[in-house]
Amino acid sequence: MDEIVGKTVENKQIIFRDYIDGRSPNETDLEIRVGNKIKLEAPKGSGALLVKNLYLSCDPYMRGRMRNFHGSYIPPFVPGSVIEGFGVSKVLDSDNPNFRRGDLVSGFTGWEEYSLINRTEQMRKIEQNDIPLSYYVGLLGMPGFTAYAGFYEVCAPKKGDYVFVSAASGAVGQLVGQLAKLHGCYVVGSSGTSHKVDLLKNKLGFDEAFNYKEEQDLDAALKRYFPEGIDIYFDNVGGAMLDAALLNMKIHGRIAVCGMISENNITSPVGIRNVFSLITKRIRMQGFLQSDYLHLFPCFLEDVIGFYKQGKIIFLEDMNEGLESGPAAFAGLFSGRNVGKQVIRVASN
Amino acid sequence: MDEIVGKTVENKQIIFRDYIDGRSPNETDLEIRVGNKIKLEAPKGSGALLVKNLYLSCDPYMRGRMRNFHGSYIPPFVPGSVIEGFGVSKVLDSDNPNFRRGDLVSGFTGWEEYSLINRTEQMRKIEQNDIPLSYYVGLLGMPGFTAYAGFYEVCAPKKGDYVFVSAASGAVGQLVGQLAKLHGCYVVGSSGTSHKVDLLKNKLGFDEAFNYKEEQDLDAALKRYFPEGIDIYFDNVGGAMLDAALLNMKIHGRIAVCGMISENNITSPVGIRNVFSLITKRIRMQGFLQSDYLHLFPCFLEDVIGFYKQGKIIFLEDMNEGLESGPAAFAGLFSGRNVGKQVIRVASN
Repeated sequence: MDEIVGKTVENKQIIFRDYIDGRSPNETDLEIRVGNKIKLEAPKGSGALLVKNLYLSCDPYMRGRMRNFHGSYIPPFVPGSVIEGFGVSKVLDSDNPNFRRGDLVSGFTGWEEYSLINRTEQMRKIEQNDIPLSYYVGLLGMPGFTAYAGFYEVCAPKKGDYVFVSAASGAVGQLVGQLAKLHGCYVVGSSGTSHKVDLLKNKLGFDEAFNYKEEQDLDAALKRYFPEGIDIYFDNVGGAMLDAALLNMKIHGRIAVCGMISENNITSPVGIRNVFSLITKRIRMQGFLQSDYLHLFPCFLEDVIGFYKQGKIIFLEDMNEGLESGPAAFAGLFSGRNVGKQVIRVASN
Repeated sequence: MDEIVGKTVENKQIIFRDYIDGRSPNETDLEIRVGNKIKLEAPKGSGALLVKNLYLSCDPYMRGRMRNFHGSYIPPFVPGSVIEGFGVSKVLDSDNPNFRRGDLVSGFTGWEEYSLINRTEQMRKIEQNDIPLSYYVGLLGMPGFTAYAGFYEVCAPKKGDYVFVSAASGAVGQLVGQLAKLHGCYVVGSSGTSHKVDLLKNKLGFDEAFNYKEEQDLDAALKRYFPEGIDIYFDNVGGAMLDAALLNMKIHGRIAVCGMISENNITSPVGIRNVFSLITKRIRMQGFLQSDYLHLFPCFLEDVIGFYKQGKIIFLEDMNEGLESGPAAFAGLFSGRNVGKQVIRVASN
């Protein structure tokens, strides 16, 4: 490591400009700030870590923090401040007995080159195990764990179930589909380009996949792929697809409501009209957050690392180079530009 | 019993005129037919029952059978034919070894004075026990069991939970509220007249109640009655109230979706816009039908008869006299005219 503890260095940052209630984020909602300085030191008595950020994660939930709404599970970003998100970082200095210089960690960090982390209780130490480091914000991080907890704990899967996954090549969807296949389910995914459809069928092992943008009628599309109905819908998009899925669920079907990337205007989204199906089909529709299942995190790591090492699952990443690529990479999530999990490489080590 | 087996008598009937896709039922959608004759006999070898109908139940779900839609859990009525529903009847003649003349039974029967029942497997014999006979289509019938199964099995109630019940003085709601009070919950009900609000607070023991028609803003009303949020919403109405409740649920709240009487146009209802709350609050929203829980029916009868006999619960009925009153009584369900469970007395014995 070249970085010298105590030295003050330049610290490039990505700043949140202002709230964007009622629309999707644009690249210009984030701004690169140069000229900021940071002392590479965890102050004595602070219990903090001073880290170098290696990989930053672009996640759809972050849009929720760009709204001026304080009633959610996570507070909004502060206009004019560095945004934060999941990342993989290297400890340069530690005032905390649980970490030491050189440790690799994952957890909440700033979108900047170096961060002083005060909330160390949410940082996880990464054990070196031949898995790409960036996977700790993807396959082995929040998105992967969301897929794992959502599929096994919320969907109550059984062998032979008919499973539908939307945004299926995304960070969460791709793992849901592969776990469902390993569980003995029949799995169909939807996504928004023919390239992604091809990846779903030919790389990720989905039984079928379709491009929702090429379908005039989502209800008809689902009837075509699920003539006998859907047992499990893992919903990453909300909106019209959720409405169509409600019409195509089997009796006692389960819907795991994970993301609503289609809801551009969360404060006044398009309504879901087929809620009546919940009664006639006796559907369980459940929203969830991975953070409610953290007791399962060790099992998750063991299972998914095992599957990965045995070649039973793969993971698609979309890696952008350099902190400067952050605003465009993030905004691209909402137009489906990314192919697989969107990550920003700030530094390699 | 005056009725002589084998005699042919006049049998007044209520006929379903035609499908009503897209609106609420009117009185004129049902028609009284006189002049029909029936032989008071269960044909040999048929296994059937010939019954005299005493009480007929008016239930909101019956609207679903007035639509020309065959994909539901129960088939549509046939235009020009007698409608059917839950009733309490007396067996006049039996070709079935499980029943005999004089038995009182509850189950599906026709809206007519006398019915030939071929599907006897769904008929339950009523044990005489000092409980009003009509309660077997209400407190001790499908609506009561819906309340029981929905509250205990779907809502996962805990002592101290904050419970909201819509259509709270109705056949299902009134029992949900009383069971919730017995369970140690705080219970608020909504209904559509000040008289019903008064009954909820002063007869049925709800902690609070309000008239939703007097509220400009349902979200604000719920915030007033549940400043800390709702743990359980037992939804009998759908629509705007469900949308408002979604905004006011506590984290890990449960919504039992039981009825959607507000959805006048089921094929294109007003959308539910706050589904996003399912994720942020990790809400479980579950549709159910009592028929999935029939294994609990004996426990239900024992518990609810016990509560009733101990004076711990009461049951409000709205009794209309005579088969002729059926069309108006049924249509009244959809304007909230009934106070309590709507029943038609066809005959007293």
